[in-house]
Parts: sequence; C-alpha cells; structure tokens
Amino acid sequence: MWSRAIFLILVTTAPWVACLWHADAGPWFEATKGEVWPMPNSRVVKEDFYLLRPSNFDIRVNGETCDIITEAIERYMRIILTEARIARLVTEGQPRTSVRDDPHFKGTLEALSIRLLKPCEQNGDHWPHLYMNESYKLEINETSSVAILRAEAVWGILRGLETFSQILAPSGGASLKVKCQTIVDEPKLPHRGLLLDTSRHYLPLSDILLTLDAMSYNKLNVLHWHIVDDNSFPYQSTRYPDLSAKGAYHQTMIYTPNDVQKVVDYARLRGIRVMPEFDTPGHTRSWGLAHPELLTICYDSSRKPNGKLGPMNPTNPALYDFIRNLFSEIVQVFPDQYLHLGGDEVPFDCWGSNPEIGDYMKAHNMSNRYELLENQYIAKILAISKSLDANTIVWQEVFDNGVVLPTTTVVHVWKIPSWQKELERVTIAGHPVLLSSCWYLDHLSSGGDWEKYYNCNPFDFANAANATHLMLGGEACMWAEFVNKNNVHSRIWPRASAAAERLWSFNKQENNVAAKRLEEHACRMNRRGIPAQPPNGPGFCVT
Amino acid sequence: MWSRAIFLILVTTAPWVACLWHADAGPWFEATKGEVWPMPNSRVVKEDFYLLRPSNFDIRVNGETCDIITEAIERYMRIILTEARIARLVTEGQPRTSVRDDPHFKGTLEALSIRLLKPCEQNGDHWPHLYMNESYKLEINETSSVAILRAEAVWGILRGLETFSQILAPSGGASLKVKCQTIVDEPKLPHRGLLLDTSRHYLPLSDILLTLDAMSYNKLNVLHWHIVDDNSFPYQSTRYPDLSAKGAYHQTMIYTPNDVQKVVDYARLRGIRVMPEFDTPGHTRSWGLAHPELLTICYDSSRKPNGKLGPMNPTNPALYDFIRNLFSEIVQVFPDQYLHLGGDEVPFDCWGSNPEIGDYMKAHNMSNRYELLENQYIAKILAISKSLDANTIVWQEVFDNGVVLPTTTVVHVWKIPSWQKELERVTIAGHPVLLSSCWYLDHLSSGGDWEKYYNCNPFDFANAANATHLMLGGEACMWAEFVNKNNVHSRIWPRASAAAERLWSFNKQENNVAAKRLEEHACRMNRRGIPAQPPNGPGFCVT
Repeated sequence: MWSRAIFLILVTTAPWVACLWHADAGPWFEATKGEVWPMPNSRVVKEDFYLLRPSNFDIRVNGETCDIITEAIERYMRIILTEARIARLVTEGQPRTSVRDDPHFKGTLEALSIRLLKPCEQNGDHWPHLYMNESYKLEINETSSVAILRAEAVWGILRGLETFSQILAPSGGASLKVKCQTIVDEPKLPHRGLLLDTSRHYLPLSDILLTLDAMSYNKLNVLHWHIVDDNSFPYQSTRYPDLSAKGAYHQTMIYTPNDVQKVVDYARLRGIRVMPEFDTPGHTRSWGLAHPELLTICYDSSRKPNGKLGPMNPTNPALYDFIRNLFSEIVQVFPDQYLHLGGDEVPFDCWGSNPEIGDYMKAHNMSNRYELLENQYIAKILAISKSLDANTIVWQEVFDNGVVLPTTTVVHVWKIPSWQKELERVTIAGHPVLLSSCWYLDHLSSGGDWEKYYNCNPFDFANAANATHLMLGGEACMWAEFVNKNNVHSRIWPRASAAAERLWSFNKQENNVAAKRLEEHACRMNRRGIPAQPPNGPGFCVT
Repeated sequence: MWSRAIFLILVTTAPWVACLWHADAGPWFEATKGEVWPMPNSRVVKEDFYLLRPSNFDIRVNGETCDIITEAIERYMRIILTEARIARLVTEGQPRTSVRDDPHFKGTLEALSIRLLKPCEQNGDHWPHLYMNESYKLEINETSSVAILRAEAVWGILRGLETFSQILAPSGGASLKVKCQTIVDEPKLPHRGLLLDTSRHYLPLSDILLTLDAMSYNKLNVLHWHIVDDNSFPYQSTRYPDLSAKGAYHQTMIYTPNDVQKVVDYARLRGIRVMPEFDTPGHTRSWGLAHPELLTICYDSSRKPNGKLGPMNPTNPALYDFIRNLFSEIVQVFPDQYLHLGGDEVPFDCWGSNPEIGDYMKAHNMSNRYELLENQYIAKILAISKSLDANTIVWQEVFDNGVVLPTTTVVHVWKIPSWQKELERVTIAGHPVLLSSCWYLDHLSSGGDWEKYYNCNPFDFANAANATHLMLGGEACMWAEFVNKNNVHSRIWPRASAAAERLWSFNKQENNVAAKRLEEHACRMNRRGIPAQPPNGPGFCVT
C-alpha cells in the first residue's frame, strides 16, 4: 500500500524521500557495521582485526587525568558492555565461524590507553568553550594489543572515546570485532548545537539529560537552551522567584537552581556547553504574569488599555535594572561565555498603540520608526551583557533592523528564504555567524526526511571563502509547539544527526552511502536508550 | 522564532495548521474539562453536579454480568483513581473554593449502576463483531446519587464506561466533579478501525496491547493487523513454522500463537475486533525466505533467472494447498468473521518475464493480460476463504482490475485522488466499503495536522444517500516504514482520534471547538499512559 501512496505525496512534497526508498536492495534497509557518525576527518582501516571481550578489556589512563576522563571511562565501559550483550543477542542462533584461523585475526584487544598530552585544566578547559580543542588520534595497530587514544585536550579524549565505541562490531558470541585502523579527527566547525525549547512545552529534567547523552553520541557540543518564552517561564530565578512561581505552567514544571546545575554539570562531563537564551523584548508574555510592569500596555483604537500586554516597554527605566539583576544571576548560573539575547520577531503594533511610548519617541526624535526604539533597547541590553563579560548572540532580525552591533556579537541566521544571502551580508559586516535555517526539526515531511538536513552546506554562500573564521557553525532547532516528552526524542534523532555530521565532518558523503551509516547510528542510539526513529524505511534494530 | 517560520512553510503546505495557531487566545491552548471524545450522539448537561470520591464510590452491576463487564469495572475504577490523583495534583496550591454552598451541588455520587438489558452472550456476542450493539444510555440525575448506565449489549456497557470516565473533571482536592446529565449514544458507523503494520517494523506485544487500550479510549473497534508483508513475516504459524523462523527479522521479533491469543483476548475485553490481513499475491517477499517455491522466479532479458523472486506464482497448483492450509489455521487463530486478503499493488513485470507463466497464459487464452491472471488467483483465494466461512475484504485494486467479486466482499478504498468517485463506483456495484484514503497517518505535515483527518467525511460521495448500509466505516492506517515502537504511539495519537470521531459521531463540530476537546482528550490519554503528542500548540498536561 505504501510505495504508491508515497509517490502521490512526493509529487507535491519532497522528491528526496523517494530516492532511498526506491533504491532499496532487499527486504529491509542495509546498515553498516562499525562505521562512525559523524564521519571522521581521516580514517585508514585495515583488514587485520582484534576481538574485544568486555570482561578482559579496560580503558586505562597513561598520565594526566581528571574527573571528565574518569567519568567518561565509566560511561564508555558500560556502553561497551551493552554493545557486547546486544551483539551476542543479534548473532545468537547464527552459525558460529571461528576467527582463529583467519590470518587477519591479531588476538584479543586488551585495553584502550588514553594519553592526554597537556594538563586537563589548561586554557580555561574546566568548562567546555567555543574554541576548545576537540581533536584526537586513535590508533589500533596490528603490532600491539593496546589501542591508543591521544589528544591535546580533554575534549578530544571525549570525542575519541565516542569514536572508539562506534567502531566495535558484532562478531558472534560476546566478542566485538575491532579492525586495525588509524583515525585522525577534528571538527570542521566549533559550534555544533541543538536548540531545546522548554517554554512551549515543559521538558522534564531527565529528558534534557537524555538529550545531552544523545548529543554526545553525535559529537554535538552546544545545548542552546531556549528556556523561557511567551508561553511559560520555567526557569526558577533566585533573584526573582515569582517569574517561575507565576509564569511556569505548573508548580511541577520548573527548573530549580539545582536542576540547572545538574544540566550544566552533566553537559560539561560530555564536553557540551549550555548556552541559555533569555529572549527579549518580544516573546516575553510569561514574564508579565509576575512582572506586568516590564511589558507594554496595549491600547485600543479609542486610546484605552485593551487588557493586553505587548513586548517589554523599552521606555521604562526600571526594566533595565531588572534585566541587569536577572542577567547578573544568569551569567553566574550558566558558566558559558555566551548569552543568547534573542531579539527576534518583535511586534510593533502594541508599542504603536501606547501613548506614553508615542510621547517618548517624539521626545527622542524617533517619529514612528519603531525599529529605532527596538535598537535602543538592544543597545542597552548589549551594554549590560558587556558589563557582565558575556559574549552575545542575537537572532538575525537584530542585524536586519540595523542595530549597531559590536563585531564580536554573533548573528544567528534562522530565516529560510535567502539564508545564503544573509550569511553573505552578515559576514561582510564582520560578524561571526551561526546557521539554523536548514535545520528546523519542527518542519515535517513524510518519510525519514533526514536528507534535507544532510544536504545543507553551511559554507554555501558567496562570501564563504573570506569568512571561514566567521562561520562558527550552526544549530538544529527543536521548537516545541508540537513536541513534548512523548515525541521530542524520536523527532530529534536521527534527524539532527544529519546536521551534526555536516557541522563536524569536512566532507559530505553521497546520501545513499551516508544512509547506511545513519541506519547503523540510529540503531546504535536505540541500543543506548535513545528512542531515535527509523531513518530510512523498513528494518529492525535489536536492543 | 516560530510563528514566522510556520507561516513560510504554510505557503507551500497546509493552511489549516495556521488557523488554530493564530487564533490562540492565551499563552497556551485551552482545553475543555469533562468533555467526551468522540462526541456522543445526544448529551444534555445540567448545572447540578455531584462530587465523586474514589474511596467512596463503586461501579456495581444490577443483574446480568460476565467477564467483559467485571474486568472493565476493574479497569475503570483504576482509571478513576488515576484521574482523582492527578486532579489533586493539578489543583494543588490553588485556592480551594467550597462547593458546599453552591445551590447546584447535589452531594456525593455513590455509585455507577450497570444494567445490561439482555444476556451477555446473546447473538454471538462472545466475540465482538461487525454489527455488535454499542449503544448505551448514561444518566446522572439530580434526584439520585447513583448514576445509571444501561445497554442492550455488553459492548454498549464498555462504551458507556469509557464515556463516564471522560465526564469527570477536577474539582479541588481528591474529588472529581460530575455534572448531572443524560447521554444517549451509539456509533454512526460499525467498522472503526486502526491498521497496524508489524512487517515494516516489528512492534513488541506490549505496544500492541497499549494501542488496544488507546483504541478503547477512542471507541475504535477494529484492529486491522497488517501482520506480514514483503519485509518480514513475524506471524508464527503452527502449520508452517518456517515462515517466521526464516521470514521474521529476528528470532525475538515474532508473534507466537500465545502472543496472538493475548492480543485477541485483550481486544475482546475492550470490544475490539482483531482482523488479520495476509496480503497476497504481491507484498509476499518474506514468505519466500522459507518457501521460495510459492513465488515467481523472475527472468532477465536473456531469459535466464535473475536471482530475484516476484509475487506469488498463480500457476503453481501447490500454492493453493499452501494457502488453504494456512488460512484454515488463521480463521481458527483469529475469531473475527473477516479476513483481509490484501490484493494491492501487484507488479506484473516478474510474471511477464517468466516463460512458464507465459506458456500458462497462452494455454489459458490470457494473451498478455496479467490482470486476468491476478483475477484467477484472487478468485481461487476467495473460494478458499468462502469454504472456510470467512468474510472477505480486499484493497480497491482488486475491484478496479475487474475481478468478479461476490457482493458480500468488502472493498477497502485507500487511494488518495478520487476516493469519492471510487466510493461511488464500489457502492453502485453493491459492495460494502471501508474508507482509509483520508486517514493515512504516515503522511506528515508540520503542526498538529489532525484537522486534515477531522475534515474527512466518509459520506462525501455521490451515491452516499443510497449506500448508507454499504458504508461500513473506515480505518486510520499506520504504515510502518518510518515508525517503530519509539514513535508509533505519538504518531497515531491523537491524530487517529480525529478519524475516530468522524466514524463514531453523527455530527462534526467546528474545528476550533473540537480542538479544545481534543486538547483535553490528548492529555487524558497521557494521564492513562498513552504518549500522545500535543495536538494544538503550546500547552501542558499534568500526568
């Protein structure tokens, strides 16, 4: 019933869905075994191989270590155990072939030896940061039963451990097969993010932590936490506890300081930054439930308050004290250097209806140019952020509306038409950029639809050659109007994996080749407890 | 970031998504309290109300009873306890208002009294069946603290209990508010189904049982179990165990006779028929893993076998013995009167390549008209089914290709363009029909997208007035190319609820009115452990 049905909808939607489906070679989709996602920069694989038995294997540190490494070793030992348990289940009942007579069999892999080449906490490496060093080298050599993982920084060790855990393949029984190989790897782009929106729907803490696990399996390194918005204010502020007491959906739907700390610490151990967004001056309706004085009173045509509140009121001097106090807290709570200021989609109609704002604008020679009022607001917020030593990121409208921005402010491009043109304009103006336009996970189409995300090249814009240092990376965005804990994980994964590879890997594979790796990777995530959805069509995953 | 983004995609996709979003009145979507989904045929609600305290409430039987009623009472008492527990959580911390002084407060509702008017097992009512009587009357009267549920048949008792569980609303503390009301209800259409496809991806038994729970919350009454297909053969046959031993994805991914029995029994207790589909002669690749002799050997252009197998080979006499043996088992295992024979999407190219089939067709004067060969096959399968006393259902192609069908054979309409014309043709030919064209749950678009399903009227065809007795109902279809246990529930619910209401309810509400009931219903399903996704946009559900 299906192939014809999908054809019908493809006529009006997405031709890429059909490609894979009609190219399928068997009754189900073929997956690779022991391939890596995202694809490493350089990998040379040999025919020679070892067998790894979890009971006779350990990950050991040769030299420098710290909590990030110690805890990662525990995690990956558990993952290797799980891989071996499931590999046994997969191959159970199949005829056993002895590898002992295989001339390429080199024996048992005893250990993975970790060599961190510089101190753990060098260069501000206590916390993950934009330009942290994630490069690593992984060697499994036919002359030694000890594999070696080398990195300059602890972040490279994390990435290398993830890679090591992915090259293991079933081999009959409880052993895993590990081919001799050399992997030299580093990311193409430093900012590889996922946006979670916890305002449209609340996401329990455990689901955020699970998302961090999944991010680490995809070498994503920034959780962009769009923590509050119009709909609810789940962030519990120490300074202004009423914001969540009155602005959260429900008393059980808040993030306490302890919760936030857990997220930040959990992320750190996985080499993931947690970048908060407190979007203003629009998208702030929930702020008004506790603090209506921050927002603009909207008026009807007969110049009476209509009972509604609009965006923040930039003419209210008390607003800036409030923001300064709140942001002072936020930069303490979130150790990341960057603070996302939002600034998108500011509606001007309520400002236009308010006579006090009208008077203010007249007095300041703004006539009816509301973008000037917006710009004045943003300038003040930028100054506050600067005084708090926070680097800033804004959505593209702030740039589009002509706000005078310091060149250090990152512009986050999200609009869909002409994102290439926008990247060109922003980089010509000298701003660092982030791209999200092609990675909106809330935009659905039938089928697995990861290829549309995979086809996006963040360097596909006219000024790219001059702007390699300005293209910081991008983010897959999981806006939560229609997702909650019930569907968020299967909607993100493995669709965001496609973005993760384009941000990490230097080269793009042909889609039908990448598809087989993604099939393996989705199943790998399933084995690790991430309820990723099937990417390519019929198939199965033993978990 | 969202409203503008959705606008952009709406230009090219679905205007209905925007309607609700832009019409939203507050920071989140408003839900009704104590409304029923699907909407009852007749409901008169008064201002007077009772409070229900689970600890002081029971469901009792006045007269006739049986296992279906006894077990349903246990289930619904548990559901009422859950509703009360969560209602308490929802209202915790809110100011308590005493209802004692409310003139409409009529006291404590002591019990729901069940009155089954005829014996449980009348008219073959041991198993649910196409024309089972699902009508019921539910009365909550200001003069009696005992609510009364009356029905002619046990199926009406089940539907009435579901309705009773839905009219309860939070009321502060552990009490539930129940308004005085009279509901007289029956379904518009007798066949209200959901198709599950367990071949493209295997679905664990527990997920099938959970789906049956959810179906009962939506008064759906047919599980159409598309149990096998090209991709895998999870059905474990007693007569031909090799079919699943070799044709299932994995040894852990089969349905044993015991599993099937559990599904059938679990469904029966919820008034749900389990109608199996064994689709032939196409969609049978997995059959060939154990029984290649059933399928057609495909030849290349030089008239040599190309190593592939096509649809079943209708010229092989042994095929019909095999089908007869298998179907004899199936009609024993599945007590439903109907057997879905499939018959869709038969490709003719492999038949055309096979010289033996060519010779057979010449000998039988079929020249190159492969539909005649298909028809001969279907005629034989229909005869086998008839000899086994099974009523038959076929996908629309069988009718479209001109197979001579007995008028009792149901034609299942699934193609999307011109389904109205097809319903007209099929009913003019005198066949009962089922509709699925507008309820393909694998067709995705952004947003909640339930409205496209809700807008479909199965009587929207030219011959409808003459064919009310032939329109049996329809099914929402969850083809499983891109769903497995990780996303199947959130993809089905509450999108299939929209179809459920159109099949049960005599009248359609305005979408923006129905939306508020669906918001409540999705949350109700969440409270009962069904991971339904958010239907309408931002909001929350305490569970």
